[in-house]
Amino acid sequence: MKFGGTSVADLDRIENAARRVAREAEAGNEVAVVVSAMAGVTNQLVSYVDQTSRIYDAREYDAVVSSGEQVTAGLMALRLQEMGISARSWQGWQIPIRTNEVHGKARIEEIPADNLDDRLSQGEVAIVAGFQGISPRNRIATLGRGGSDTTAVALAAALNADRCDIYTDVDGVYTTDPRIVPRARKIEKISHEEMLEMASLGAKVLQTRCVELAMNHGVRLQVLSSFEDLPGTLVVDEDEIVEQQVVSGIAYSRDEAKITLIRVADKPGIAAAIFGPLSDAAVNVDMIVQSVSPDGERTDMTFTVTKTDLDRAVETLKAHADEIEYDQLLADANVVKVSVIGVGMRSHTGVAQTMFQTLSDKGINIQVISTSEIKISTLISEDYTELAIRALHTAYGLDAE
Amino acid sequence: MKFGGTSVADLDRIENAARRVAREAEAGNEVAVVVSAMAGVTNQLVSYVDQTSRIYDAREYDAVVSSGEQVTAGLMALRLQEMGISARSWQGWQIPIRTNEVHGKARIEEIPADNLDDRLSQGEVAIVAGFQGISPRNRIATLGRGGSDTTAVALAAALNADRCDIYTDVDGVYTTDPRIVPRARKIEKISHEEMLEMASLGAKVLQTRCVELAMNHGVRLQVLSSFEDLPGTLVVDEDEIVEQQVVSGIAYSRDEAKITLIRVADKPGIAAAIFGPLSDAAVNVDMIVQSVSPDGERTDMTFTVTKTDLDRAVETLKAHADEIEYDQLLADANVVKVSVIGVGMRSHTGVAQTMFQTLSDKGINIQVISTSEIKISTLISEDYTELAIRALHTAYGLDAE
Repeated sequence: MKFGGTSVADLDRIENAARRVAREAEAGNEVAVVVSAMAGVTNQLVSYVDQTSRIYDAREYDAVVSSGEQVTAGLMALRLQEMGISARSWQGWQIPIRTNEVHGKARIEEIPADNLDDRLSQGEVAIVAGFQGISPRNRIATLGRGGSDTTAVALAAALNADRCDIYTDVDGVYTTDPRIVPRARKIEKISHEEMLEMASLGAKVLQTRCVELAMNHGVRLQVLSSFEDLPGTLVVDEDEIVEQQVVSGIAYSRDEAKITLIRVADKPGIAAAIFGPLSDAAVNVDMIVQSVSPDGERTDMTFTVTKTDLDRAVETLKAHADEIEYDQLLADANVVKVSVIGVGMRSHTGVAQTMFQTLSDKGINIQVISTSEIKISTLISEDYTELAIRALHTAYGLDAE
Repeated sequence: MKFGGTSVADLDRIENAARRVAREAEAGNEVAVVVSAMAGVTNQLVSYVDQTSRIYDAREYDAVVSSGEQVTAGLMALRLQEMGISARSWQGWQIPIRTNEVHGKARIEEIPADNLDDRLSQGEVAIVAGFQGISPRNRIATLGRGGSDTTAVALAAALNADRCDIYTDVDGVYTTDPRIVPRARKIEKISHEEMLEMASLGAKVLQTRCVELAMNHGVRLQVLSSFEDLPGTLVVDEDEIVEQQVVSGIAYSRDEAKITLIRVADKPGIAAAIFGPLSDAAVNVDMIVQSVSPDGERTDMTFTVTKTDLDRAVETLKAHADEIEYDQLLADANVVKVSVIGVGMRSHTGVAQTMFQTLSDKGINIQVISTSEIKISTLISEDYTELAIRALHTAYGLDAE
């Protein structure tokens, strides 16, 4: 069971979370819990670091900011004991959760969980401080954004857990954003691959890194609410889903910007001439389309970058204009990427056609298309975001009754 | 160098402390620093624990409250790095500072400091989280009240440090409380034994436990101000003090209460009959006087307890009135213990006589007297506290010019 920041925001919420843990333990389950820091604590600690040092030593940053989870873990253990449940807190170095040395965004390398496992089988609930491990040099290392989710999945894998429940402030994964489509449905079961696409395409419920880890280790995830007693969404191996939808969900990302280079010299090595400098400038390029060259000499090259990288990308391309040789550079931040996702695409034809027809029927122009085995993404004008998502949601039969 | 709570109360004060550390490091000294938690942090954490659990597991209490020192240590290391000084933070478990298993008031058992020592000799400043160590079962154990001072002294002993500087909000140890005697002088050098008596007799600058540890390991202490650039008071082996004062200081404690049992049966075992039940009731008895029995059958027994224990002591004695057999029980909380301290007493006669004569000259009645090798304590009416201390301070030649 993993409880994030909003789920352990204050002492009352820690008590609420502890009650859920107690219920599982009393039902005879062996329970390991991963907790984040209380609301505001990590921000406060990060602000202390920022005020103290301009360029900080990530090892000291880690020592400071990891203390928040340590506090929640101790308090949660105490709360459970108060409820008559045997429980103890574990810090990353006590288990140990071994990481590499990349402080601030360390990767977990190994969790020798024998000790923890013994205590669980004796009926003791383990409350583990999330977001942290111990480096080969015996220093605390934090795991970066979404680190507590990563802790939970890695621990579930190490313990061969039946399930890893991620408690959040939403009650599951929806077919699309319910703020845009009120008839969006909560998904009962979704495959790891689909969830991974959903996460990387803009659904904010889980971090891609956490889903990837769960997929690689076959960990069954559940996303559910800390505040309501409702079943959540199960994220499982594809094989476990008997009746597979063709399309499981529709994701979108407003964090896209489009760059078009008009009349680029159509010669070998041109892609390297464009994307090499962008890569050097740490600009992440996503969708790429090269249009057919009418005269065989010049071509148009369109691609997307994140909105925050747009200015840097444009500057870089202008600085390398001589090598690349293009007539014109167009930049457009007024775009959105809309994607339909579903493992059913593998065996069903016509999924892409439904998307193109639906957008066309609404008079929406598709600027860029990219596809993978289980998703189709289109770039359209941001003005049509809601219209496109609602129309696709209906077209793929996802609307709730 | 040890910086207590007020010396690292906020980021500005951490910076101020860091500047002092930097100065020592730049002067070519190998420096280990022990820090407390920032102001209010430990109280906040203790309050969380109190709100979470009525009877708490001290191991979880320790995991929660020790996090404050961890934060200060990291921030101080960062601040020093920002000043161009090589520095790193160390938590109790990283050194390790090995303690016993008495969580909440653990005792340090061993500090294998080789690793730390190596780093110091490479010119790296060590910032050690005070107040904490690691138990034989790999849990964080805190050292209780004054724990950071204890960490500092134990570490100084383990490192064979030339000196252990305790930075506080006072600038040294005075011949007596300057709020009572404006002409009190700061003591330049005092012996461990005298400091120990001063601490246990009411001087609040250092905890007795810290002085005792320093005495047993021959650690040279210095008490000095974090806020002013003044030499402090050195606490050293007696041998190091060339010209010894007969009396070094005058201490007092208002936390005393007197109990007198009138006409107790003067028979063997009577002391056990009185003090056994008090001990069982966890009442600490200090000064004891048994007056000469005029008839050989009955005697008066007078002793002191702390003010907070007075009610419990009286109840206990009333409950055991039948075994003890006394005519009357008198309790008086309106008393103060005034003590003169000095290793010079060993070789000089007349020190006690000066005390008795001085008090007598001022019309102050001595109710109880107790002596040790290097101190004489008298119990007098609390109304005469200031008068007695000022008179004695003058009589022993302690007034500043």
